[in-house]
Amino acid sequence: MNVGFIGLGHMGIEMARNLLKAGHSVAVYNRTRGKAEALASAGARLVGNVGEACHNDVVISMLADDDAVAVIAFGEGKAIAELPVNAIHVSMSTISVALSDRLAEAHRGAGQTFIAAPVFGRPEAAAAAKLYIVAAGDGKAIERCQPLFDAMGQKTFRVGLKPSEANLVKLSGNFLIASIIESLGEAFALVRKAGVDPQRYLEILTGTLLSAPVFKTYGGLIVDEKYEQAGFKMSRGLKDIRLALAAAETLAVPLPVASLVRDHFLAGIAQGRGDSDWSYLAGLSARNAGL
Amino acid sequence: MNVGFIGLGHMGIEMARNLLKAGHSVAVYNRTRGKAEALASAGARLVGNVGEACHNDVVISMLADDDAVAVIAFGEGKAIAELPVNAIHVSMSTISVALSDRLAEAHRGAGQTFIAAPVFGRPEAAAAAKLYIVAAGDGKAIERCQPLFDAMGQKTFRVGLKPSEANLVKLSGNFLIASIIESLGEAFALVRKAGVDPQRYLEILTGTLLSAPVFKTYGGLIVDEKYEQAGFKMSRGLKDIRLALAAAETLAVPLPVASLVRDHFLAGIAQGRGDSDWSYLAGLSARNAGL
Amino acid sequence: MNVGFIGLGHMGIEMARNLLKAGHSVAVYNRTRGKAEALASAGARLVGNVGEACHNDVVISMLADDDAVAVIAFGEGKAIAELPVNAIHVSMSTISVALSDRLAEAHRGAGQTFIAAPVFGRPEAAAAAKLYIVAAGDGKAIERCQPLFDAMGQKTFRVGLKPSEANLVKLSGNFLIASIIESLGEAFALVRKAGVDPQRYLEILTGTLLSAPVFKTYGGLIVDEKYEQAGFKMSRGLKDIRLALAAAETLAVPLPVASLVRDHFLAGIAQGRGDSDWSYLAGLSARNAGL
Amino acid sequence: MNVGFIGLGHMGIEMARNLLKAGHSVAVYNRTRGKAEALASAGARLVGNVGEACHNDVVISMLADDDAVAVIAFGEGKAIAELPVNAIHVSMSTISVALSDRLAEAHRGAGQTFIAAPVFGRPEAAAAAKLYIVAAGDGKAIERCQPLFDAMGQKTFRVGLKPSEANLVKLSGNFLIASIIESLGEAFALVRKAGVDPQRYLEILTGTLLSAPVFKTYGGLIVDEKYEQAGFKMSRGLKDIRLALAAAETLAVPLPVASLVRDHFLAGIAQGRGDSDWSYLAGLSARNAGL
Repeated sequence: MNVGFIGLGHMGIEMARNLLKAGHSVAVYNRTRGKAEALASAGARLVGNVGEACHNDVVISMLADDDAVAVIAFGEGKAIAELPVNAIHVSMSTISVALSDRLAEAHRGAGQTFIAAPVFGRPEAAAAAKLYIVAAGDGKAIERCQPLFDAMGQKTFRVGLKPSEANLVKLSGNFLIASIIESLGEAFALVRKAGVDPQRYLEILTGTLLSAPVFKTYGGLIVDEKYEQAGFKMSRGLKDIRLALAAAETLAVPLPVASLVRDHFLAGIAQGRGDSDWSYLAGLSARNAGL
Repeated sequence: MNVGFIGLGHMGIEMARNLLKAGHSVAVYNRTRGKAEALASAGARLVGNVGEACHNDVVISMLADDDAVAVIAFGEGKAIAELPVNAIHVSMSTISVALSDRLAEAHRGAGQTFIAAPVFGRPEAAAAAKLYIVAAGDGKAIERCQPLFDAMGQKTFRVGLKPSEANLVKLSGNFLIASIIESLGEAFALVRKAGVDPQRYLEILTGTLLSAPVFKTYGGLIVDEKYEQAGFKMSRGLKDIRLALAAAETLAVPLPVASLVRDHFLAGIAQGRGDSDWSYLAGLSARNAGL
Repeated sequence: MNVGFIGLGHMGIEMARNLLKAGHSVAVYNRTRGKAEALASAGARLVGNVGEACHNDVVISMLADDDAVAVIAFGEGKAIAELPVNAIHVSMSTISVALSDRLAEAHRGAGQTFIAAPVFGRPEAAAAAKLYIVAAGDGKAIERCQPLFDAMGQKTFRVGLKPSEANLVKLSGNFLIASIIESLGEAFALVRKAGVDPQRYLEILTGTLLSAPVFKTYGGLIVDEKYEQAGFKMSRGLKDIRLALAAAETLAVPLPVASLVRDHFLAGIAQGRGDSDWSYLAGLSARNAGL
Repeated sequence: MNVGFIGLGHMGIEMARNLLKAGHSVAVYNRTRGKAEALASAGARLVGNVGEACHNDVVISMLADDDAVAVIAFGEGKAIAELPVNAIHVSMSTISVALSDRLAEAHRGAGQTFIAAPVFGRPEAAAAAKLYIVAAGDGKAIERCQPLFDAMGQKTFRVGLKPSEANLVKLSGNFLIASIIESLGEAFALVRKAGVDPQRYLEILTGTLLSAPVFKTYGGLIVDEKYEQAGFKMSRGLKDIRLALAAAETLAVPLPVASLVRDHFLAGIAQGRGDSDWSYLAGLSARNAGL
């Protein structure tokens, strides 16, 4: 399939590489050209602007935040103007429900199709084509894109016909992970202050009811107090919680745990830890407990 | 081994039965005699008071709360007075850290040994001898009791030499489960109000990062809104959160998520749902969202 | 002084009337013309668009929210384009810190001066020229406007040279009032459920340490459970808390009480009480307590 | 009137002195005799134990906490055993609702009368006989004690016939003050980080809607960051919030702001500030904001 790929960050570069491996023809664009060049040897066509990346059946965007996506869609890049009629824009970034709704409307108005397909997984999962993809939007368009999803992920989950449902699922998922980190951090502060061995405590948790990867991953970081090599930064955590809270506010849904986690992200950032891993939420709990 | 067993509630009756199956000689006592009689055919000796149950190498107590345990230890039952020197009292109830410390001191003063060995698992797990047991206290005493633990549970985890460490681990574990229910409830309220299919949402959560049994169990109850057949009541959830918060207060550890969950248990109880399953926390979130 | 006045809502109409009473020449503009006509007999010149209102030494805007102010400043109205060089725009609306900063920059770029001067007080206070005005921005410009402030308010407080400081003071003030309502609501729910007479309770509070008008006003509404005649709606309360939280997020300041109050506004709105007085926060506390 | 007075702390010594000034015959008892001797020159009779203090028409207790009151009532002091039939025990301490209920029942059983009459006011107010007294219990007994209240306070408020209603009013009052300190602390952190002058900010707050003494007192401490000379310690604040939350739990009333304030007291105590003034809640907010 002829695909444009916009955004070659930690995640995007691995995803584009997997599309190439699967035999797709991929035109890549990144604001800073260096990253795109790294893919040339893998067979990517390098293009000089968003518009060229859009001259394909499908264009995938994988960017850092709402602002970056809005720029390529409505701003200088003007993906919407350049994309052919009947072509598909697949937004795999973690963006707001509001922007997703706005993109869906704009593409529909231009005779194009918009799909949201955000992903769960860290860069290593992206490299191993082990992402989980949550896709929403027109069913036929998703089917057309399925070979692309299969090249990048281990499984695609489909939700509703409204693309922003997928964004909401992604944001709510990140809220759940953040809330688990927060609760784990509080529990570890409690048992550590009582003298319980934290490693043993983690073995008990993960050896009984809490056996999911999320407990092993974040429990391990908390036991080791390894907050500096960020897999996902506090500032990014704050961004996603903010987007979840904004979507919830529009729907009039109170999310008290999300509010609490947001305040803790802010406290961490205020204390200079915006670039620490978001598991530093547990570091804050330890600090608040005088540990 | 000659064992006394005090407390034949939903959990205790299954645990005592498994001790009998494993060939131990078990003298059972329950305040209301009917329950004890049900075990006679399985080989249990029925005794008429706490004191008789204590005339054994080991006495196990499995009671509803601090008050019930304090009564058999210090009150009319006077387990501490009746227990032979060098005998062991194994407290498997979910009790407070403060009472556990008090029991340890009292038994030590009487030349006996006190072990705390609370369990994770519902009555079905107790019946199937699949409990997880968290034991703390004197190492030799725990070793002496290991055959008993093996008859009741699938695995024994050992924490420190201070018995109350096991109680704290148990209480913090229940806090973690309650916090997960709370967060899940908020997330489900959000996506349901946005029109996402809740069953599909649960499949995504449990099919990706959140694969632990706790998500399947409680996610399923939330999807079906089955809050009335309580496996563990709101009022019991409140009790355990209160004990976790009390232990944390003594140690000067703030637990903001626990505070929030406590308030929600209280709101549910105030609205007449004290006997609903503690997953009704999610019902409250739905109600607060106007669903 | 020749003044333009944009926005004749419950507050604006009274403020403009007081400017006329004080002898100023006032050109009024309101999107729906009916309201402006009511002021014609009091001596106001009616103008047909924002641009005409801006052909004065000073233009005052008193509008409902950020969107309305952005429209007259940057949108169809284009206050910034029409305002003469060296003229002053006095924004008395409760708007965001971010919009205030953006307005300050835009007016500066156009050789004009921007002052923020939001007010404390309900419509009755506006009618009686008893508003409290908090003004920030260029000192000389504020001095030039002082006769206008004196005509509308009982006292003007000056904060810093950056206009948005005044907006932040206003937003934080509304946060404080909302937090007081929330705490009062919780306290009243507690004592009422214990059987204490609420009227007597209020007398004790206001007769001892809590003698400020805010306690009398909101305590009285809570005692009478008069939430339907809204002086200030739940939905407006939510808006102002959102703006306070947004300003705090930009500065990395956690405001946990504001987060909690925000969740309660949302719960009230979700339950159909968006148009109730914001003291309905106390109604929610009563309901959560099963009263 | 012949009065026994038990407990000569910062508050009690001033209250007893005012009883003497008003011409009452006062037998004073304090665990450490030194304090009692200071009153001898003012005309007090010094007694050597609780029992002697109880050989009067009325005995007043003014002690630090539940434990101290329980000791003199039920423990070694045995006020209840020693108090004559028809005599009155006036408890002016800030104690729990549960203990107050227990005292009421015990005194009733012994043919005596129990009144709760906790006070609002700091030691300076006690010295100046300017306390506010909140009295609950049997109406005739309160009338008999009115001359004593008049000697110690500026005003007596009467609530219900159940003594513990007065204790609940007192505890809820302290909760309200703590919640105001918390909200003020958050607001000050916000405006200070934005560069607003804190002294000017306080003038605006107290010059407009928030004119009550509580805002002046605590706002002043926050502006000056004078947290070390404690008028009322963080640890005492925690105690009273705990008692308010315990009473609320018994009644099934959620108090989310109280829960939040409790967590902040704990964080302060964990960080070594248990002896700071409870206005250090604002210091914590500043710290969490990175100030």
